[in-house]
Amino acid sequence: MEHRTLALGIDIGGTNTVFGLVNRRGEIIKKGKIRTVGHTIADFIDSLHEGVSPLLDHVTRTEIAGVGIGAPNANYYTGEIANAANLPWKGVIPLARLVEEALGLKATVTNDANAAAIGEMNYGVARGMKDFIMITLGTGVGSGFVSNGQVIYGHDGFAGELGHVTAVRDGRSCGCGRKGCLETYTSATGIVRTAVEWLQDESLETSLRKHRHELTAQIIQESAMAGDAVAIKLYEFTGEILGRTLADAVAITSPQAIVLFGGLCHAGRLIIEPTQRAMEENLLSFYKNKIAILTSALPDADAAILGASALVW
Amino acid sequence: MEHRTLALGIDIGGTNTVFGLVNRRGEIIKKGKIRTVGHTIADFIDSLHEGVSPLLDHVTRTEIAGVGIGAPNANYYTGEIANAANLPWKGVIPLARLVEEALGLKATVTNDANAAAIGEMNYGVARGMKDFIMITLGTGVGSGFVSNGQVIYGHDGFAGELGHVTAVRDGRSCGCGRKGCLETYTSATGIVRTAVEWLQDESLETSLRKHRHELTAQIIQESAMAGDAVAIKLYEFTGEILGRTLADAVAITSPQAIVLFGGLCHAGRLIIEPTQRAMEENLLSFYKNKIAILTSALPDADAAILGASALVW
Repeated sequence: MEHRTLALGIDIGGTNTVFGLVNRRGEIIKKGKIRTVGHTIADFIDSLHEGVSPLLDHVTRTEIAGVGIGAPNANYYTGEIANAANLPWKGVIPLARLVEEALGLKATVTNDANAAAIGEMNYGVARGMKDFIMITLGTGVGSGFVSNGQVIYGHDGFAGELGHVTAVRDGRSCGCGRKGCLETYTSATGIVRTAVEWLQDESLETSLRKHRHELTAQIIQESAMAGDAVAIKLYEFTGEILGRTLADAVAITSPQAIVLFGGLCHAGRLIIEPTQRAMEENLLSFYKNKIAILTSALPDADAAILGASALVW
Repeated sequence: MEHRTLALGIDIGGTNTVFGLVNRRGEIIKKGKIRTVGHTIADFIDSLHEGVSPLLDHVTRTEIAGVGIGAPNANYYTGEIANAANLPWKGVIPLARLVEEALGLKATVTNDANAAAIGEMNYGVARGMKDFIMITLGTGVGSGFVSNGQVIYGHDGFAGELGHVTAVRDGRSCGCGRKGCLETYTSATGIVRTAVEWLQDESLETSLRKHRHELTAQIIQESAMAGDAVAIKLYEFTGEILGRTLADAVAITSPQAIVLFGGLCHAGRLIIEPTQRAMEENLLSFYKNKIAILTSALPDADAAILGASALVW
């Protein structure tokens, strides 16, 4: 297999699907993008085939080791996507098989957070680490746990759902039907929910008020960076909940580091510092002061492709 | 190494240390016991040497593959016990090295809950399982996480401290200096603390009241089995907290089963049923109705020896 030096990485997101041809050094040689929305799964596979084809021109099939795919709710063991709330296709989709049939290449799938973890381990800040936790703070909260150099997939491939541990008992309603899940607080949508709640207090003085009907995580970030005290406190509140939940996760897998990725991390120390502080405050003594909280150094646009492609190796 | 067919298993508990010579089929050929308390570590090692020696008579050294030791706060990577609250020796004890020097045999250590997990995987109800969680409900609460057939040790060997995740935010004070740890509620001491709190309500009618100054988990169990409604509710309360904490742990490692072991499990369905119910109520949909809660079928007295010995293989 030594001559198979390329992998095709595909990341299926709620809006767009990005893909790229990646070599063993983690360099993206060619890349492309199609829309995820507005397709039936059959149309999507056709469109993916069409989008990917130009990348495979001038490349012999024997150079390609396979296809790695990251997608929400994708299962490493079954190759399926099951009931993904953020994708247009309902029910169970045999994604790996459909891609294999369309492209004639062996395909492996995993969920997007596990793919991100594999990408960081191969090409990013977790290079050389055998024990770390990857947390993606985007529209939702995803996680990938790496222990002894391997992703924890669990018995059925569904491990690593830190976004759905109960961060606040009897807390906010979550899309999953339960209450108080981490992602209802520490995702891009979660911080907006917190802001909307806080703004009901009319006495609160903040520049966010003028955006109250169109609040986004981006607006909160800009306000915080401009020094708005309420926006800064929103990050402190969010980091507090994330940090104490991370402290519990640390007690299970005892990682060397926690790697944060996704939109909320663009706020940098505004989110990192309160997260680190709350984690340390809640850690059992022998975990204290030795777990790094890192942010991904991979470019957002490429990280998903790199992570998916690294599944192949 | 095929001719090395025996392992010496040693379990160091707060009161007693038990040991046994075990063959590859998990049969204890000979066993013994010494007191753990009242020794300096040097005295303890001498006493252990003396206790173990009769087991090694008539056995050639080349038959013995090694020594496996389970002990509170024992670290697989370093071979040390560090600041074990329930053992008489303070600070850091290089346990593996001391035992190797005394017995002239290669020694491997791990904490007692990890040893129990390895024992169940080799000889008990978790035989053939690659993903499960072991929970020991004794004086404290310990845990061992097995993922993809391997114990999760974590970066530094300290993984698997489910007894110290926060089960109740700002809850009971724990010996570890933090608040609301699982073990302050769901250990033998935890259920007694709950009973003592409840008995402050003078209107509560229960047979436990006459034991109020000498309550033990054993007395609560006997009362519950005799039909005392308050004692039964104590198990329901305890199981509720254990079950919802397990639901969060499941979201991280997605196990096939959870294996319970230790004194509190002797109450059987009194503790299992509320635990299972609370876990199911709190599980994310795709984990529901597929995770077995099992109790260890190994005899209490032998399980620790078997688990420790299985470390060797």
